[in-house]
Amino acid sequence: MNERAKLVTNAIGRPVPTVVNGQEQAPYKGVAQTDPTGHKQAPPVRSCKDYPPSGDKRVGSLQEALERCGLRDGMVISNHHHLRNGDRVALEALQTAGKMGVRDLMWFPSASFPCQEPVIDLMEAGVVHHIEGSMNGPLGDYCSQGRMQGMGVLRSHGGRWQAIQDGEVEIDIAVIAAPSADAFGNCNGSHGPTACGSLGFGLADSIYADRVIVVTDNLVDFPCIPWQIQGNNVDFVVEVDSIGDPSKIVSGTTVITRSPDRQRIAELVARFVRDSGIMRLGFSFQAGAGGIALAFVTYLSRMMRQAGVKASFVRGGSTKYLVEMLQEGLTGYILDGQTFDLDAVHSIATDPRHVPTSPFTSYNFHGKGNFASMVDVAVLGATEVDVNFNANVNTHSDGRLLHGIGGWQNCLAAGCTILAVPSFRDRIPVIVDEVTTVTGPGQLIDVVATERGIAVNPARQDLLEALKGSDLPLRPIEEIKAEVERFCGGKPKKAQVTDKPVAVIKWVDGTLIDTVFQVAQ
Amino acid sequence: MNERAKLVTNAIGRPVPTVVNGQEQAPYKGVAQTDPTGHKQAPPVRSCKDYPPSGDKRVGSLQEALERCGLRDGMVISNHHHLRNGDRVALEALQTAGKMGVRDLMWFPSASFPCQEPVIDLMEAGVVHHIEGSMNGPLGDYCSQGRMQGMGVLRSHGGRWQAIQDGEVEIDIAVIAAPSADAFGNCNGSHGPTACGSLGFGLADSIYADRVIVVTDNLVDFPCIPWQIQGNNVDFVVEVDSIGDPSKIVSGTTVITRSPDRQRIAELVARFVRDSGIMRLGFSFQAGAGGIALAFVTYLSRMMRQAGVKASFVRGGSTKYLVEMLQEGLTGYILDGQTFDLDAVHSIATDPRHVPTSPFTSYNFHGKGNFASMVDVAVLGATEVDVNFNANVNTHSDGRLLHGIGGWQNCLAAGCTILAVPSFRDRIPVIVDEVTTVTGPGQLIDVVATERGIAVNPARQDLLEALKGSDLPLRPIEEIKAEVERFCGGKPKKAQVTDKPVAVIKWVDGTLIDTVFQVAQ
Repeated sequence: MNERAKLVTNAIGRPVPTVVNGQEQAPYKGVAQTDPTGHKQAPPVRSCKDYPPSGDKRVGSLQEALERCGLRDGMVISNHHHLRNGDRVALEALQTAGKMGVRDLMWFPSASFPCQEPVIDLMEAGVVHHIEGSMNGPLGDYCSQGRMQGMGVLRSHGGRWQAIQDGEVEIDIAVIAAPSADAFGNCNGSHGPTACGSLGFGLADSIYADRVIVVTDNLVDFPCIPWQIQGNNVDFVVEVDSIGDPSKIVSGTTVITRSPDRQRIAELVARFVRDSGIMRLGFSFQAGAGGIALAFVTYLSRMMRQAGVKASFVRGGSTKYLVEMLQEGLTGYILDGQTFDLDAVHSIATDPRHVPTSPFTSYNFHGKGNFASMVDVAVLGATEVDVNFNANVNTHSDGRLLHGIGGWQNCLAAGCTILAVPSFRDRIPVIVDEVTTVTGPGQLIDVVATERGIAVNPARQDLLEALKGSDLPLRPIEEIKAEVERFCGGKPKKAQVTDKPVAVIKWVDGTLIDTVFQVAQ
Repeated sequence: MNERAKLVTNAIGRPVPTVVNGQEQAPYKGVAQTDPTGHKQAPPVRSCKDYPPSGDKRVGSLQEALERCGLRDGMVISNHHHLRNGDRVALEALQTAGKMGVRDLMWFPSASFPCQEPVIDLMEAGVVHHIEGSMNGPLGDYCSQGRMQGMGVLRSHGGRWQAIQDGEVEIDIAVIAAPSADAFGNCNGSHGPTACGSLGFGLADSIYADRVIVVTDNLVDFPCIPWQIQGNNVDFVVEVDSIGDPSKIVSGTTVITRSPDRQRIAELVARFVRDSGIMRLGFSFQAGAGGIALAFVTYLSRMMRQAGVKASFVRGGSTKYLVEMLQEGLTGYILDGQTFDLDAVHSIATDPRHVPTSPFTSYNFHGKGNFASMVDVAVLGATEVDVNFNANVNTHSDGRLLHGIGGWQNCLAAGCTILAVPSFRDRIPVIVDEVTTVTGPGQLIDVVATERGIAVNPARQDLLEALKGSDLPLRPIEEIKAEVERFCGGKPKKAQVTDKPVAVIKWVDGTLIDTVFQVAQ
């Protein structure tokens, strides 16, 4: 796996390997330029004759469950990340596998967090061979250093569903942490002392994995209602004292940015959405749970209220700000992919208009459509954006891989995509000549909003037309870039990397859009 | 297809063909004696690039939708039967195919009803080759006469899911009637002027069919909430004036039997459930929507109220009697497979404790367990039952195929299975030496309750033990049979049939449990 891979140049001019972790790869050919082939992943047919008629699938421990799943060297173990930095189950599963003497596992989380830093020890010990999944923080850093045995593979939320569905990744054992579950394996994230809201990131795993283990600290009587994940796909249920630290699973409350610059960005974005005519009766938007995005939601809410405009739905990570919109009637529905704070968890558990979604409904590019392209405007972040509007969310300008993709690539399908970013961070310009890593093509990025002004992609003449006469600070992206460079004392230094690929960035259709190279020591 | 098929004798002594409609078949080997092989059906991978980014999948007509699905000779067309005898969509789809000049279709409804009698004309004209699915009334009669070109294949609700999931039946085009749908294809049966409650019988079709058309007379704004069927699986949406006749889709109200004999059966069954100790805190039951079953529910409710006993859940076709239990707190949940009357439709649309289910959750034998085996007692009907407790729900004693299987076979997995049947109908005994058709093996049938007494399967000594000292009229089945024969003037006449198989009865694991032969003219 460690041999230098052959690289080819893809349609956006980036070098990508032809083989990753032993699997042949296709280079990115452009937006919607690759046709899927083949059929969906087909897990083995099981029979009720091999499951207890009582429906009670409990076993004594996670180790027993892993044994009965036939855990062995080289298997693919998956987890969802709805418990975020409070998760105790994923690490426990991998450490248990280590104690059982198993080696060379591929860990396939929907995302990993700093709380899972000890997976580095398991990689050093050979228990885990490599990680395919978003690596936030220390694990990404470890990968950047070229210390992982295999290559990291980063996929968007929709891309992860696509990879599972299409059989690119065959999950041997899915270990699903569940804030509520019955003994049959029906489970949800919306109820219980460690409630996290939706369990959508574990849904594909439950459907397509060979074996499925549900781990819960809140066993309820059958039937566990609602069942976000169905017991009919579950092999074993394990009761534990605690699946995670509630205070790190959801925030007590999400925090709006206090920075005046970022407040200004949020307000500019809201005004842009209003003045361009996107904010109209029945429109829809998606915004994340970052500080700028939250501030944007409060500005936009105010404008909607003033104009008497109601959204048909809002998408995205849900917070109390979206819940307030729902309760006030400013939106008909919240279509929820992740649930970020206690107000949102309470809402998803009790309000039928607050609907859990999965990457299948929202993001999977290999479906018969998805929700992402029906969203009128998506407000997103980025670590870097270049003068061609290509953007990076994975690496920093020093080349280190520190962030996952999340739903970011998938959201680029929205009618209007706005990157709401400060023009610099730590005196390093965010707008650059060429991004360190291309996570998404500029063709799909319509607007870059900074505290120094708003750059509209010249391909979107319709937006520029709609904003004629507006008092918004519309400026060419090159002009904003030049100003930031003057302010910061020049362009950012180029990342110092070797020629060894350590991770690849997949596009939503499974092709390779870019490569992350080992950071030079 | 019409050649005389080779017959073999299966494990329950019935002759079954080795080949049906060109497909090799396995004979029934006994309860839980057949291991599944292979992998689940894998539909082709699709891409969002081939679907409208707006999410608007509407086309002008059903014909246009069928054309764009590539309808051609020999295809498999499926429908669900939630609109029952009020359905207008299934017949319209087949007749439209006929007008388009297509021939030799296999029609694969989850069940067919008298309103679809004109499918006989389509079979005579060669548009429809044969039907695989429950045939209630005229279509079953037509099949019995040996006039269908192919063989009928009858499956339980769970068996239909199993056949689709396992790839035994590959659906080319699913046409799904939806009481509410959005333009993306998200749809439900619980809302709208032709509401039918659950849409569970169409779920497998939506997941596994190559192409999926949703037909609605109630287009709602995106998102259609709840989505019982997901637009992400849907190719086209067609708006029509009416998908069916509401008065025939659900009853205004379901009607309890007024016959004193049948009332007595219902009361005996309720007493049996109580006195055997099955009726205890947290128990569960399933009963259908027939007259005896409804009366049973009212008797049992009364006994539960008197004893202060609450069920954890009730399953089955839902009616106002189950809804009253839910509202009164006599059950925690209704797990609903079909929704039979207006009270139940209102309940499923508004009460989160009234949960729609699918044959996947409830009945599919080729899953990792299902709900059916977790039910403590199921109260079912039959056309005939023999002294070995084998039972028939498909044919009459004259050999005519007039009924589908429904969930009947699947419900036999319950902890206790009770057939609640009159001892005779039209002066023809119901208890016989040998049933005309074996739909379910006596091994799984525990109790036969008639107005003349209750026969417990001798294999269930535990039930007999629990009822020691009871004042229930427990009698050997042979004794009841003898009494009925005296009363009716002898045994029923043997069905006069030819040696030509016209239909097969599949067991829950896909094996053949029996064959229906052409009725002699």
